[in-house]
Amino acid sequence: MSEERPIDMRSDTVTRPSDAMREAARDAPVGDDVYREDPTVNDLESRVADLLGFEASLYVPSGTMGNQIAARVHTERGEEAIVERESHVYKWELGGFAQHAGLQVRPVDGDDRGVISPAQVHEAYVEADGHRPGTGLVCLEDTHNSKGGTAIAPTDIDAVADAAHDLGVPVHLDGARLANASVALDSPLHRLTHEVDSTMMCLSKGLGAPVGSMLAGSEAFVEKARRVRKLFGGGMRQAGIVAGPGLLALENVERLAEDHEHAALLAEGLEAIPGVTPYTPETNIVLGATDDSAEAFLEECAEAGVLGVPFDDHLVRFVTHWDVSREDVETALDRLRER
Amino acid sequence: MSEERPIDMRSDTVTRPSDAMREAARDAPVGDDVYREDPTVNDLESRVADLLGFEASLYVPSGTMGNQIAARVHTERGEEAIVERESHVYKWELGGFAQHAGLQVRPVDGDDRGVISPAQVHEAYVEADGHRPGTGLVCLEDTHNSKGGTAIAPTDIDAVADAAHDLGVPVHLDGARLANASVALDSPLHRLTHEVDSTMMCLSKGLGAPVGSMLAGSEAFVEKARRVRKLFGGGMRQAGIVAGPGLLALENVERLAEDHEHAALLAEGLEAIPGVTPYTPETNIVLGATDDSAEAFLEECAEAGVLGVPFDDHLVRFVTHWDVSREDVETALDRLRER
Amino acid sequence: MSEERPIDMRSDTVTRPSDAMREAARDAPVGDDVYREDPTVNDLESRVADLLGFEASLYVPSGTMGNQIAARVHTERGEEAIVERESHVYKWELGGFAQHAGLQVRPVDGDDRGVISPAQVHEAYVEADGHRPGTGLVCLEDTHNSKGGTAIAPTDIDAVADAAHDLGVPVHLDGARLANASVALDSPLHRLTHEVDSTMMCLSKGLGAPVGSMLAGSEAFVEKARRVRKLFGGGMRQAGIVAGPGLLALENVERLAEDHEHAALLAEGLEAIPGVTPYTPETNIVLGATDDSAEAFLEECAEAGVLGVPFDDHLVRFVTHWDVSREDVETALDRLRER
Amino acid sequence: MSEERPIDMRSDTVTRPSDAMREAARDAPVGDDVYREDPTVNDLESRVADLLGFEASLYVPSGTMGNQIAARVHTERGEEAIVERESHVYKWELGGFAQHAGLQVRPVDGDDRGVISPAQVHEAYVEADGHRPGTGLVCLEDTHNSKGGTAIAPTDIDAVADAAHDLGVPVHLDGARLANASVALDSPLHRLTHEVDSTMMCLSKGLGAPVGSMLAGSEAFVEKARRVRKLFGGGMRQAGIVAGPGLLALENVERLAEDHEHAALLAEGLEAIPGVTPYTPETNIVLGATDDSAEAFLEECAEAGVLGVPFDDHLVRFVTHWDVSREDVETALDRLRER
Repeated sequence: MSEERPIDMRSDTVTRPSDAMREAARDAPVGDDVYREDPTVNDLESRVADLLGFEASLYVPSGTMGNQIAARVHTERGEEAIVERESHVYKWELGGFAQHAGLQVRPVDGDDRGVISPAQVHEAYVEADGHRPGTGLVCLEDTHNSKGGTAIAPTDIDAVADAAHDLGVPVHLDGARLANASVALDSPLHRLTHEVDSTMMCLSKGLGAPVGSMLAGSEAFVEKARRVRKLFGGGMRQAGIVAGPGLLALENVERLAEDHEHAALLAEGLEAIPGVTPYTPETNIVLGATDDSAEAFLEECAEAGVLGVPFDDHLVRFVTHWDVSREDVETALDRLRER
Repeated sequence: MSEERPIDMRSDTVTRPSDAMREAARDAPVGDDVYREDPTVNDLESRVADLLGFEASLYVPSGTMGNQIAARVHTERGEEAIVERESHVYKWELGGFAQHAGLQVRPVDGDDRGVISPAQVHEAYVEADGHRPGTGLVCLEDTHNSKGGTAIAPTDIDAVADAAHDLGVPVHLDGARLANASVALDSPLHRLTHEVDSTMMCLSKGLGAPVGSMLAGSEAFVEKARRVRKLFGGGMRQAGIVAGPGLLALENVERLAEDHEHAALLAEGLEAIPGVTPYTPETNIVLGATDDSAEAFLEECAEAGVLGVPFDDHLVRFVTHWDVSREDVETALDRLRER
Repeated sequence: MSEERPIDMRSDTVTRPSDAMREAARDAPVGDDVYREDPTVNDLESRVADLLGFEASLYVPSGTMGNQIAARVHTERGEEAIVERESHVYKWELGGFAQHAGLQVRPVDGDDRGVISPAQVHEAYVEADGHRPGTGLVCLEDTHNSKGGTAIAPTDIDAVADAAHDLGVPVHLDGARLANASVALDSPLHRLTHEVDSTMMCLSKGLGAPVGSMLAGSEAFVEKARRVRKLFGGGMRQAGIVAGPGLLALENVERLAEDHEHAALLAEGLEAIPGVTPYTPETNIVLGATDDSAEAFLEECAEAGVLGVPFDDHLVRFVTHWDVSREDVETALDRLRER
Repeated sequence: MSEERPIDMRSDTVTRPSDAMREAARDAPVGDDVYREDPTVNDLESRVADLLGFEASLYVPSGTMGNQIAARVHTERGEEAIVERESHVYKWELGGFAQHAGLQVRPVDGDDRGVISPAQVHEAYVEADGHRPGTGLVCLEDTHNSKGGTAIAPTDIDAVADAAHDLGVPVHLDGARLANASVALDSPLHRLTHEVDSTMMCLSKGLGAPVGSMLAGSEAFVEKARRVRKLFGGGMRQAGIVAGPGLLALENVERLAEDHEHAALLAEGLEAIPGVTPYTPETNIVLGATDDSAEAFLEECAEAGVLGVPFDDHLVRFVTHWDVSREDVETALDRLRER
């Protein structure tokens, strides 16, 4: 292991809050959010609702909780959810759709970028009858993490949402990194969410808040979501302490452009590194196919002082974020070249 | 609608019990099976365990209950089940894996005949970690209903089961029509189940019993299954009344060869019928691709006095069984030709 | 153990079908009930709906399934059910309300006869809010098994049902032995069910059918119940074979008066038996408090050729039924006296 | 409504963090806690494990989540939990035991102070069989909120825990306000938890942290709990921002003595207030029986500038905490006298 500080590109979740965020944590007006009396949380929820173009939003401890609450609120027991096969809700949330909502999952194969089509929704749709659970939810993801942070265009989202709505099925958008998509596509957040029924967006990850995600939807949806949040144990008290930094995170959207540049720089540099073939990034995630096992490659990287995560047997992921400067990327490439 | 009796090939579930079965229903020695004192049920459970090559078996009201009990007994909550995408447990059992067992389903695409490979099991396998539900079950189906009653070879079952076992995952075989596979492949039932951990086989369907299916496995498995059967409300009292006909159903295995011949005859005849292109059947199920919508084609058939069911927008299914004689098949073809 | 045939009073579930029922099993017109084409089942469902005063009814394999389906159909997830503390659904159905319907149970203590009052319903009622699951069901039992087969009067049922309805809560009646209540109270079945929203009544037990129970309610309720029955694996095919005897069971209601007389005779006789103090029976169930442990007392009984079951550490239950004649009761008492 | 700032005694959850806590939020060293790299969280978890006398502990967003995780980790599906009838897990957590863990609840009536006895555990214990879900958990609460913050003695906890363990059943202690019990009883925290298998203690409430509760148990228990926390969406990233204040909260245990004095003062004063009869508090919770409805009484209080919550139709609760000084209590009493 390099004696230098490793360049940590395992995830944008590792970002530490800025000094301003720390000051905001110290200074936030607070109250008991379970009584809905935390002014900072109320402010955050109101501003995010506006940003995302919904009537209301809810502060939750994690993106996973946001997605799982949405699934539960949108569906009745004994229904199905259409998900992209590589999506986070299907792969990385401990089977929560089945566990929390009794939902059967119907995965469909998106294209190389994780985009599913209206035709696929129609094909995957199941009409409830005496033997078949009916489709109760379509879940999208933007940016699509497992496909390499691809920024799904609003028109692609609209098209799927319209198809779902034609079938009477609501649509939830897992927008853990929706702000990255917004910047990459130069499309306002509310444009991306325009046709969907609910959206989860993380304040942690690239936006840099220490804790928290937002779940947005109609007033009625958020009212029900608040109750399910309590059921899941997600109701917090003086949550303004973390919502305060969350408010500042909202100002970091434009800054994500830097992460995207850094990712592009990293991918370019990786072209010259033996043992790995990078994909061209769209946002802040760089995937690379490895010649040897992903684990072996990453071990070498770690010894050289560069951290990433395995995504598959021969696939690795590096993520840029605000604790990774342009210089850090260059240093990382130097280290990898010299390893 | 023809004034004649329609030839009913919607399913082999429509078979009515033979006179001998009716006599058996009348004459069965009975007791309270919840106390395990019904001699007819005990005899049936013992004989089916032997036939299928397991230590024990359990009489259940339906194939769906047998499959759902198996899923629950084999798994812990928060696991995944690998299933073939067109399999009955996934398509036609109201999402029971999620509902009853909290299982997330991971469907894999079998080949044209519904066969999945050991490689696919390895690929679909998920090792449990802090974010991912681990694979807890592989479920196979033989014959594969939705693929047209294909008789999956014992070697294909063995190969998948071995792969699953290498990964520490148990295998359940949905053998609703396993007897058809046995006859078509000229392979004893216990040869088909040799490597799997549990099997469900229906006594109704082609074997002609009025009610009931068998779930077989180890003593320990069946002990747990008996308790889950109670939870599902499947414990019956003097069940010998229906288990008696079930015992006779076991004698009907060889007879299924006739149904297979009739299916072949039907498929041949359908070649000449405009508007439909039959697939070559392997057992007692004949699928046909329709030029127009499946619904429209079946309506015409029904008017001519021939009944089938739609399987997809342009796919129909006809099933031969012991209430459909060779003459009936010929009559059906005549009617379709004349329609 | 006596070499004579033991007098089996463990439960009225041990009754074996009469010759007429066996003939009915043999002769029943049948069809595929999953397609709703079994004329015997249809006839049974229609007749029971009339008898119980509901729009429709559904044939299910067991009383447990009937009760569990009802709980699921009446409620949304995350609600509560008010039950009597000693009721069957709470004690003997493997926690199905939590398992199948995610219901939290709120047991209330009925009086000595298992009667709960309108005031108790009001007290136990919970209005849903952000922290509390709302009451979604009240479940009654008549006759009340654990309290000794007490025949709850229709006015008692009405009163509770009216209280529940005032609160907007539906009521399910577990009438496993409702026919016994009807006879004991000289009150028609439909009078007992007049104010409740659904009722389950067993055809096995005292009515003597080998298999099956009926779940009755509105058309809409039964439509949903049919789907949940499929989910639970309770859909059977040529179910007429067991529904046929079930139709004859309906003619056995008046005959239950004999069982009640026999129970009274038994209780009287038990007064003179050392080691046990009988309760006065209202229907066909005789409870007795034992001086020593219930297990020890029953072992002695069994050795003398008389079978009962333990109900608590010092409580035993004997049940009279149509396989127990007046002479059998006298023989049983002789055997106990001589032991 | 008084124009003065109301004295808010609705709950000790309304406490706002101290300046020192706010500084701690600003200054906490942080990392990604999902990777277990947040030094502040690690420190907090280690220190609380020591304080509570367990091998390990886990930081969770709320007490509800801590209790619900415990229930899920300790049990298998289809078991029962013994709870006190007025306990928080039963009354105020949205039926989570049924929802998350499929647990049937068996409430027992504690005495006036919410203490249940070993005998009650033995009586409520159910041994699993083919019809009955077995007891899988006993859940205790100390202090007991609904009974007025009663401080259950360690010997009472030990006795119940020993009884449960004799039956092979684990015990979870809901110690949301365990620190209050510790102070009131002059008993170290680890003495209170000595015999139980897991404990949840809140850092918010009287200890004053803005967010968070701790779940403690064996290494193996906490390892599983961590995974369930992820399933519930309770995994947070740079949680040190709120764990930092949590560390300071641990220093506030002794300070609770003041709250208890204030509660005693309040109760004394309430004796002289018409319309309410206070109970003698043991810790920081003062219950009062109201002559008129609780709602009406509290409305009058609120108009006078004193806030409490209704606990029942004629029962109100006031809670003292560090935002309520001795002077505040006196002011509150003045206001109530003058109303």
